[in-house]
Amino acid sequence: MAESTIQTLTDVSAYMTEAARAARAASRAVAAAPTAVKSRALLATAEALDAARTELLEANARDLAGARERRIDQPLIDRLGIDDGAIDRMIEGLQQVDKLPDPVGEISGLVYRPSGIQVGYMRVPLGVIGIIYESRPNVTVDAASLCLKSGNACILRGGSEAIHSNRVIARCISRGLEAAGLPAGAVHLVDTTDRAAVGALLTLDEYVDVIVPRGGRGLIERITRESTIPVIKHLDGVCHVYVDEGADPDMAVAVAVNSKTEKYAVCNALESLLVHQAEAARLLPALAAKYREAGVELRGCERVRAIVPDATAATEADWYEEYLGPVLAVRVVDGLDEAIAHINQYGSAHTDCIVTGDYGRSRRFLTEVDSASVLVNCSTQFADGFEYGLGAEIGISTDKLHARGPVGLEGLTTRKFVVLGHGEIRHR
Amino acid sequence: MAESTIQTLTDVSAYMTEAARAARAASRAVAAAPTAVKSRALLATAEALDAARTELLEANARDLAGARERRIDQPLIDRLGIDDGAIDRMIEGLQQVDKLPDPVGEISGLVYRPSGIQVGYMRVPLGVIGIIYESRPNVTVDAASLCLKSGNACILRGGSEAIHSNRVIARCISRGLEAAGLPAGAVHLVDTTDRAAVGALLTLDEYVDVIVPRGGRGLIERITRESTIPVIKHLDGVCHVYVDEGADPDMAVAVAVNSKTEKYAVCNALESLLVHQAEAARLLPALAAKYREAGVELRGCERVRAIVPDATAATEADWYEEYLGPVLAVRVVDGLDEAIAHINQYGSAHTDCIVTGDYGRSRRFLTEVDSASVLVNCSTQFADGFEYGLGAEIGISTDKLHARGPVGLEGLTTRKFVVLGHGEIRHR
Repeated sequence: MAESTIQTLTDVSAYMTEAARAARAASRAVAAAPTAVKSRALLATAEALDAARTELLEANARDLAGARERRIDQPLIDRLGIDDGAIDRMIEGLQQVDKLPDPVGEISGLVYRPSGIQVGYMRVPLGVIGIIYESRPNVTVDAASLCLKSGNACILRGGSEAIHSNRVIARCISRGLEAAGLPAGAVHLVDTTDRAAVGALLTLDEYVDVIVPRGGRGLIERITRESTIPVIKHLDGVCHVYVDEGADPDMAVAVAVNSKTEKYAVCNALESLLVHQAEAARLLPALAAKYREAGVELRGCERVRAIVPDATAATEADWYEEYLGPVLAVRVVDGLDEAIAHINQYGSAHTDCIVTGDYGRSRRFLTEVDSASVLVNCSTQFADGFEYGLGAEIGISTDKLHARGPVGLEGLTTRKFVVLGHGEIRHR
Repeated sequence: MAESTIQTLTDVSAYMTEAARAARAASRAVAAAPTAVKSRALLATAEALDAARTELLEANARDLAGARERRIDQPLIDRLGIDDGAIDRMIEGLQQVDKLPDPVGEISGLVYRPSGIQVGYMRVPLGVIGIIYESRPNVTVDAASLCLKSGNACILRGGSEAIHSNRVIARCISRGLEAAGLPAGAVHLVDTTDRAAVGALLTLDEYVDVIVPRGGRGLIERITRESTIPVIKHLDGVCHVYVDEGADPDMAVAVAVNSKTEKYAVCNALESLLVHQAEAARLLPALAAKYREAGVELRGCERVRAIVPDATAATEADWYEEYLGPVLAVRVVDGLDEAIAHINQYGSAHTDCIVTGDYGRSRRFLTEVDSASVLVNCSTQFADGFEYGLGAEIGISTDKLHARGPVGLEGLTTRKFVVLGHGEIRHR
């Protein structure tokens, strides 16, 4: 862990290279660490956090004061603030990650081949993971604990607005690593607010195996463009619910309303509702009443507006929009084909749901909608790592390669082939 | 499929964009195609190839004449030539891929969660795969058949030296697709030798999901640098055999010799042999005799040269070298720690083997060597898709993300989450 005094880094690139080299070296020890050693590090970090409450709250107050002084956006400030309850949740998070099954070293599928060799897979850490994120200090704990449990070293680049909070958390993690006898380089908090640090990190492909950015679209697109390291992207959630012909009306209303209103500012919130033409006249008034009650503004196509006069007119841009707030685009479609085509065209391949009572159409929706999560008859808000049983998540990937959807411990690992022989040689 | 007359493409970029857009559109149909439809396409392609033998041999003769005229390297010319036997093998390859289990749509791990939803995985195609390769016309058939069977559309950019052969093969594939009622855009052979086509392809991330380059290190590094699309890389194979203390001497010699000499120009051939110091005096003379017999030049460290005087002196560069020919670097090491450190430092994380009789050290080697394939007591030359039981491979990935080691049908697919509900909504 770097020194906690703010440094004027004459050479950010050299600093980042040294951090990455140390992380690579440390990654061998973390990868080989038995479950009990990782457990010791996680629980000792939790103890250190508990002991550092006052220090952490003071540091966070400094971050908040700095953020207000620099007139940072209110939502960012909201995400920055922590209290004793937030520290409790960080500690609980560490304990929960500790209880998850250790994925490292799992051997599966060992089968004999005609040559006599036995071939299977071993689950192994990726190596060194670079995580670039904003604001929320709890991400520092979550990311470090998931990387550690999955046997990876990590380099954490938090937002400059959270630097004081993150430094205290990083010191607690250092104490955890030390208590377990693991190298300090296994979790490196980038201890400079210089933006050049991100650019430097993105080209250290010799030492870093994957980059996980968490933040706005602009940040993620910049990282994808600049990085010579593979990136696990977490882009928009333009999520859909399609209410099919013959869907149970109570279920349709419950799922469509909950998908939108249970929480607005989350990537698995509903953004575009599609309703079969045969159900529009019956369901749209009931839906509109519920949304009106919740304060959700509706933007509809012409067919929607014929039934719900107070809906404003949706533009083409609305179908692409991730509102993350109390606005919903609504469209009447002719049937399943149009719904699937709409979702595959305008959606972000994140999470999409059909409400239906029809077996064949549920099967077609599951198969033909090309999204990370495809749901039948339940709220899109279920699409996260905890609800899916992954235990915890580093984010929700909208990529197709490697990890798709909620990324838990398994997404932070890879598999290698293990081959057990008895002296076999090959004759082509 | 594009027209088969050589075009002066005024706008290569527009041509590639149109091909990619068509491939994306076709990918929906291929992804949804039942196994029987894909089977029809594969077998009809085989029939078309059988009927086009004369045409294909004539086209290949034109390619060969052109290559000789342009004084292309002999190894490239060797890989370019095909005869009736090569066409037989293409046809057999299609029949073998047809017989592989269809990976698409497999649902696994569906478990109930406390909320009442049931969550699992569905295996699905990646979408559109761009494959960039050189010389061997059989790659056109292999790549198209693997992509088709795994439910993907593909864009194939073969070497300009093979364009006439590839056009005939592409027409056969078109006939196969037509016979199965699949869209022609599902397999698109880039029908221009303009090098700008590759650059254009690499930025079409809106339509193309993954790029698989097959070729030399220079080509692959250029593609990785330029591509905005994820790349599954196939880099060098700097493979090792480590002969441990107490290893069975006959087995050690058999594995070390076969790993090198069974075939030289393959990425799973042995390039650096490591021998435990306690075995050096006994084993190195026997090994040197076998290698001498096979015509393999040895380049050794000082401790090797003290025992094998006719070995030339290895330089630092030799430990990084992928010879792909009858040259072998040999080093005496103090023990397992030094062997593992050497492999992780100098190797290419491709395929590495220990020959040992010791349980604990075999476990440590499997765990601590960070390579795509880790082997105990068998030849490195087993590291390929057929020997591993994957059925066929598109290449051997040296990447860690997504696909590692031999990439078969599964590596050309991804998983999405399927969630089956009964009207569940979420309460946080």
